[in-house]
Amino acid sequence: MIEEIPDIVISRLPIYLRELTRLAEEEGKLTTSSHELGKHLGISSAQIRKDLSHFGEFGKQGTGYHINYLVQQLRQILHLTREWNVAVIGAGYLGHALTHYKAFLDQGFHITAIFDNDPAKIGEQLDDIVVQDMADLEKTITELNIKMAILVVPANVAQEITDRLVDAGVRAILSYAPIYLKVPPDIQVSYSDPVVQMQRMTYYLA
Amino acid sequence: MIEEIPDIVISRLPIYLRELTRLAEEEGKLTTSSHELGKHLGISSAQIRKDLSHFGEFGKQGTGYHINYLVQQLRQILHLTREWNVAVIGAGYLGHALTHYKAFLDQGFHITAIFDNDPAKIGEQLDDIVVQDMADLEKTITELNIKMAILVVPANVAQEITDRLVDAGVRAILSYAPIYLKVPPDIQVSYSDPVVQMQRMTYYLA
Repeated sequence: MIEEIPDIVISRLPIYLRELTRLAEEEGKLTTSSHELGKHLGISSAQIRKDLSHFGEFGKQGTGYHINYLVQQLRQILHLTREWNVAVIGAGYLGHALTHYKAFLDQGFHITAIFDNDPAKIGEQLDDIVVQDMADLEKTITELNIKMAILVVPANVAQEITDRLVDAGVRAILSYAPIYLKVPPDIQVSYSDPVVQMQRMTYYLA
Repeated sequence: MIEEIPDIVISRLPIYLRELTRLAEEEGKLTTSSHELGKHLGISSAQIRKDLSHFGEFGKQGTGYHINYLVQQLRQILHLTREWNVAVIGAGYLGHALTHYKAFLDQGFHITAIFDNDPAKIGEQLDDIVVQDMADLEKTITELNIKMAILVVPANVAQEITDRLVDAGVRAILSYAPIYLKVPPDIQVSYSDPVVQMQRMTYYLA
């Protein structure tokens, strides 16, 4: 891809993919339109058409989008036609929950390693994987060719662990640690902080 | 507040609050500047000054911001000087994890009710609350004056439960259900879908 596509556009593609999959699997639909898709997503049909136009011509005037074809194309664009090994760092409640999160597996994200530094947690069996010592982080990530990690650790150790992940070859981090992480420009970080999300909403509650 | 402040500005205020609190508690700082704050958050100092200027004059040329004062002001603006009762809907792994999430309690979000429709889960004790039957949703939410809910249910029941929450008086929903929710314009929704976040990042991984 030569053209630099805005990240805000990229961030909407998985939402289109999710809704297209739902329309096919739950409503048995074969085709849809930017209008219908927009109605289901609270996004304007013009926005959807513009977003998709960055990647080619997927719809036809009158007939709209063939869902299966558009799903396939989006999966290719997002590099989801392969599977991704993922490490979870932190075996607390949230680390456990994410390790058991079925939608990851359904979408090709395989949690193949989980780490903690608490001796009480190391060795614990979670489904078919065992909680490993943080000391083995670099070794395991290299051996399993893990490029993605989910960070579920306290703020005060998050940057240090991030540095170790990046050095070990991780290129994308989904972070639940309540802190901004400094990473090289070619490393992706996505944040999820439920407290921050709640605090945005209380602004609107008188 | 007469002026309509963009939601993107509001969404950054909790991040400023989080970092200011960290600077005070972990680094023992009393003052900071938009420059320092920006460096810690990957946000430009001009953006921070512009965001805060919607709400008043908090800093002084030369001395910067008094952290405690700015923290107090942000907590007032975001309606965090009171406590909020919160209901969790769905007592699976993620519902459990969020119910135990210590940062909620630290920030004044009290999870005072949790619901599920699975007879095996109803009656289960989670710290000091008991998983209630979904049938009691409306009754409990009204009695406890709950205005915020965290939705951790499958996509195919999320809209129906959302409608019930809104009818019962809930005005803000943090949703982990992988679906767009239709709500009246005065109801706030914030989404968290880890699969969508991972799929944005794989785009950048060749």
